[in-house]
Amino acid sequence: MTRISLELGGGGKTMREFIAGRIVPAFKNTILAGLLDSAHLPSGFAFTTDGYVVDPVFFPGGDIGKLAVNGTVNDLVVSGAVPLYLSLGFILEEGLEWTSLDRIVASLKAAAKQARVQIVTGDTKVVKQGQADKIFIHTSGIGRIIAAPRPGLVRPGDAIILTGTLGEHSLAILTARGDYGFESCIKSDCAPLNFLMPFWKAGALWMRDITRGGLATILSELVEQIPFSILIEEDRIPLSNPVRAATELLGIDPLYLACEGRAVLVVPARKKDSVLAKLKKDPLGRRAAVIGRIENRIGRPGELLLRTTAGGLRLLEPLTSELLPRIC
Amino acid sequence: MTRISLELGGGGKTMREFIAGRIVPAFKNTILAGLLDSAHLPSGFAFTTDGYVVDPVFFPGGDIGKLAVNGTVNDLVVSGAVPLYLSLGFILEEGLEWTSLDRIVASLKAAAKQARVQIVTGDTKVVKQGQADKIFIHTSGIGRIIAAPRPGLVRPGDAIILTGTLGEHSLAILTARGDYGFESCIKSDCAPLNFLMPFWKAGALWMRDITRGGLATILSELVEQIPFSILIEEDRIPLSNPVRAATELLGIDPLYLACEGRAVLVVPARKKDSVLAKLKKDPLGRRAAVIGRIENRIGRPGELLLRTTAGGLRLLEPLTSELLPRIC
Repeated sequence: MTRISLELGGGGKTMREFIAGRIVPAFKNTILAGLLDSAHLPSGFAFTTDGYVVDPVFFPGGDIGKLAVNGTVNDLVVSGAVPLYLSLGFILEEGLEWTSLDRIVASLKAAAKQARVQIVTGDTKVVKQGQADKIFIHTSGIGRIIAAPRPGLVRPGDAIILTGTLGEHSLAILTARGDYGFESCIKSDCAPLNFLMPFWKAGALWMRDITRGGLATILSELVEQIPFSILIEEDRIPLSNPVRAATELLGIDPLYLACEGRAVLVVPARKKDSVLAKLKKDPLGRRAAVIGRIENRIGRPGELLLRTTAGGLRLLEPLTSELLPRIC
Repeated sequence: MTRISLELGGGGKTMREFIAGRIVPAFKNTILAGLLDSAHLPSGFAFTTDGYVVDPVFFPGGDIGKLAVNGTVNDLVVSGAVPLYLSLGFILEEGLEWTSLDRIVASLKAAAKQARVQIVTGDTKVVKQGQADKIFIHTSGIGRIIAAPRPGLVRPGDAIILTGTLGEHSLAILTARGDYGFESCIKSDCAPLNFLMPFWKAGALWMRDITRGGLATILSELVEQIPFSILIEEDRIPLSNPVRAATELLGIDPLYLACEGRAVLVVPARKKDSVLAKLKKDPLGRRAAVIGRIENRIGRPGELLLRTTAGGLRLLEPLTSELLPRIC
């Protein structure tokens, strides 16, 4: 391969190899090497960045502005930091309608207010027509660290808790784009995850928001870091009826679909009931569920296993090819 | 105007109106309203962001990687902060050659080393062929605040000091792009301005790096904030011979050309000689010069005046139209 392919941006194996093989060695430093969703700086602050190229710009349940705030806010939350400040970088295509930009700015404003962050600095570049696609946004975020993921403390029996249903964001984009020639009532789950912050104190050992690569890829990354296996149960994974219907129709596995307002937590066995009960009290956690556990009797260390509805065991691999480009 | 035009990204009047009219009111908070090159956070840290869309990606004297590090580093320096950490966001066009990306990563690495900053977090997105132009980069930066620009302390007689020759970066891009059908030996001045940090202690009241909009636009922004005028002298402005020749040939005013390794300082009258002598000791300040002064006898408050080589006085306005898109 002499040229960059879409897979590189898919959040799967190609992207991880790029980061591990070319980025980390080039910029080697202990902070970057941590490869958390945000960099934990010695000063007690966390720092993260994300680019947003979603197509279409406006979709059921959100738009690129809402996504650009929540995506970066959520990276801070799941790395243990209270989101405080965002920067905002626009790349605009000449010819974009002012009404679109105004609508996106209003959405950024509303999302920042909801997520309780301040947008404190920014930059705008404009390129000629055809040199970008409408609008790309980069947000970077700074948060105050109050906890850190501790995968080293994860033990067999610890619970894997999913905060809500899978797949809405990806399917909202996909059907809005018309890729599959049908419409749906599915709305993106795009939302700020600030409500998860108290769960660090409540005992969560590890959290990740479920973005590119989906639940299967994200749990694969966790299981590689621990000397155990992970078992999740297909029939415990919450799915909305429209998502279930659409994924069956399209033959897409919801375990690989990106969300923008869902997270997965690892919680010690003895705390799982109290955490689950608390999660369910928030509207964003209403459909939270224990979907599996850390295992040392089934599978080998480093394996992510799915017990299917039919009762079999399936080994889940991280995403390798790009399912849905420009989903975020 | 119902659609976004290239002017919006030019660093001139249209861009300032966009920021003042739409961005600041939307996200209103005291930090953003400061509109410094970086946001000064209550925690003692400065935070800034910039997008880079330069075309061509590789040019005489640099490339988009070097630019992306130095541009953000320089925004921190001129706002009074020691650059510490950078984030790195790529938007890549499918089909970009791996050798190009590797060369850019190597350049980012070298530039970060030279500017003594760590790249601690990042993100990569890939869009389909034709949806972006090769590569766009966003860098955000965090620095430790040791000083702050104090335009309120500027007094008549204070010296305007330019750290070096104008125009190299813009002309290097312009001739590399072949826009004007001739080649030149002009290399970009792209460089980190860390060497300016000690000048905050040495008495500088205000600093700005000379980017989009050029010297005239940047001094226009200063003069609007003070109850005096500014007078600069054309024959004191350092220009290299190739830049002088090229700007005369093309009929371009070097006062509006973006640089990427030059800054302008305001220094109290009694300190100007010592500051100038110190600046000249650094290779990047070798051609530093006092080019003008804060005035209360010539012109009206808020006016930026140029004494031309012929002896006349010319009122300088901020850049209004986009001279050179995708210069940075």
